Amino acid sequence: MLQLYFSPMACSLSSRIALMEAGLDARYHLVHLRTKKVADDDGDFRGISPKGAVPVLVLANGERLTESAAVLQCIADLTPESGLAPRPDDADRYRLQEWLSFIGAEIHKAFLFPTFWYKDDASLAKPRARIAQTLSVPSAHLAEREFLVGNRFTVADAHLTWALLLLRPAGVDIAPWPTLVAYLERMQARPAVRDAIATEMALRKTMAA
Amino acid sequence: MLQLYFSPMACSLSSRIALMEAGLDARYHLVHLRTKKVADDDGDFRGISPKGAVPVLVLANGERLTESAAVLQCIADLTPESGLAPRPDDADRYRLQEWLSFIGAEIHKAFLFPTFWYKDDASLAKPRARIAQTLSVPSAHLAEREFLVGNRFTVADAHLTWALLLLRPAGVDIAPWPTLVAYLERMQARPAVRDAIATEMALRKTMAA
Repeated sequence: MLQLYFSPMACSLSSRIALMEAGLDARYHLVHLRTKKVADDDGDFRGISPKGAVPVLVLANGERLTESAAVLQCIADLTPESGLAPRPDDADRYRLQEWLSFIGAEIHKAFLFPTFWYKDDASLAKPRARIAQTLSVPSAHLAEREFLVGNRFTVADAHLTWALLLLRPAGVDIAPWPTLVAYLERMQARPAVRDAIATEMALRKTMAA
Repeated sequence: MLQLYFSPMACSLSSRIALMEAGLDARYHLVHLRTKKVADDDGDFRGISPKGAVPVLVLANGERLTESAAVLQCIADLTPESGLAPRPDDADRYRLQEWLSFIGAEIHKAFLFPTFWYKDDASLAKPRARIAQTLSVPSAHLAEREFLVGNRFTVADAHLTWALLLLRPAGVDIAPWPTLVAYLERMQARPAVRDAIATEMALRKTMAA
């Protein structure tokens, strides 16, 4: 069975959404990112992945894959019938990779990561000044589209859904981008997306308690 | 013919390396990233790509593709015989995507980007404090390997070569990682890599003059 190392509401949420959209069973291992401990047995998460970051997808053969862009495409390809990624010989596959890169680099690494890990205002002034321009890119793209790539839900939507959800706790109200507000509502209306978020929000509350 | 919008020694250098390793002809358009002008005709680069970032690869059908992870995989797949990427049905393809994501997010977006665009010490203290841990990941991986993925040069090596080259002007000496020093020397000994770098270094000197 597949296994996913995750932390509630961290970027591994996209991988959980993808697994649930694909109808794939998996064992989920909760990781405390600040202490680098795996909750199951209080073990050292760096023993699982030296990067110390989620997601880590453990494949049926025991290999461990990291980085959302790779993990999400791998999950999609395990269930080609799910349509979670265009087939590798479809030109839209590069559009999927383009969006995964943009979300991972521009929204996550350039903004959400410093916001949640650096925290001090001095580190955050420049990232904060850029986020509106960053969000204008998916907003313009989605103005007349239901999904990021093609005309169905893909793992790029799973990733953007996570990123948009995290903007509010990061202090960014997306109300000035009604296209993004409507998109996030559409995505959250999907049963798999809704269930994945509910599961992780409940776990997060337990951890904070 | 393919076209590549690039800026000398920016991350689009990896795409030039990939094109030259693949033996693909292309028209290269120089972009001034700070003014967002295309040097050919002083035109507005945001008219080519609203993101205002390089690389932009223009395909034979006129479509424009952005984001190094997507552009590099597209170039590789145009010449499957080049071996610049594992075939899409090879499990190593996910390893390629994993490295492209890591280089793009952790070295480029989390460190090189703030160094060259934010510049002020306040913005850079936290990114600088992280870079040694980031570099330990490819250093450990390459300890007993010639290339990042499989046993031949791929577009992931093109991307890491660029990132390592930029560390010096970003104020990071890679001497403490002899594995990375040796790797960079190996990569720069490849004729296509050497020629791509020489071309862009010459253009950069012209711009600075």
